[in-house]
Amino acid sequence: MQVENLDHIGIVVENIDEAVKFYQNNFGMKLIHYEAISERGIKVAFLVGNKDSSTSIELLEPINHDDMSNTVAKFLRNRGQGLHHLALKVDNISESLKELSEKGFKLIDDSPRRGARGHLVAFIHPKSGMGVLLELVQYKD
Amino acid sequence: MQVENLDHIGIVVENIDEAVKFYQNNFGMKLIHYEAISERGIKVAFLVGNKDSSTSIELLEPINHDDMSNTVAKFLRNRGQGLHHLALKVDNISESLKELSEKGFKLIDDSPRRGARGHLVAFIHPKSGMGVLLELVQYKD
Repeated sequence: MQVENLDHIGIVVENIDEAVKFYQNNFGMKLIHYEAISERGIKVAFLVGNKDSSTSIELLEPINHDDMSNTVAKFLRNRGQGLHHLALKVDNISESLKELSEKGFKLIDDSPRRGARGHLVAFIHPKSGMGVLLELVQYKD
Repeated sequence: MQVENLDHIGIVVENIDEAVKFYQNNFGMKLIHYEAISERGIKVAFLVGNKDSSTSIELLEPINHDDMSNTVAKFLRNRGQGLHHLALKVDNISESLKELSEKGFKLIDDSPRRGARGHLVAFIHPKSGMGVLLELVQYKD
């Protein structure tokens, strides 16, 4: 696998609208995408800097903060706001997952699924990521 | 303040040499810098993807794992390996700190200090970063 670049860093927040304003007003960052992903029970917002937008911040807020079957709501309840995951961009996510699986990586998603912005995504378990929840992202064409 | 781009994402690890190999061998990432910063009591390594290198992973390992006056050693002891901080690149760090200070941000570094790669850096307290330890970075000329 050849990771192309860091795609985004996921940050769990209590209130996504306030968090978007926080990064816009204090750091001059630009909102490039906002979406409610009902099947994952989260709202997400992507922000980038002013010179290079290849790596973004993804803010995540659970739609229902009390739904402890939702991993983001659970994270927020147990650990509070903070850094959540790191996403790496690849050109062939299925091939990448196959490689990792053959190496014995513990995968959360054995096969790619539709994520934010319509891209294909898959998560790797933090136990196989040296304590980091890693996500692979392949952009839709 | 106008953040230029995400500069790096800091990840605390138990063993930096193993962690470098982890990202090289499994994800095809490239090591671009390795440094022991004795005055901060840490070793750091920077890795990037193959297409865009403007945002990197910074791996951090304490030089002395038992020194609880070292924030990275303390993080490792209390929380284990994982995501640690998010660094944002700015063109004028002194001006940026002044702006944040005037807005009431709680700063860990009131003035910039010399960080990894000789760049100027300053940390913002997670209480003022919506739970995220934010770092500002201004590249040396």
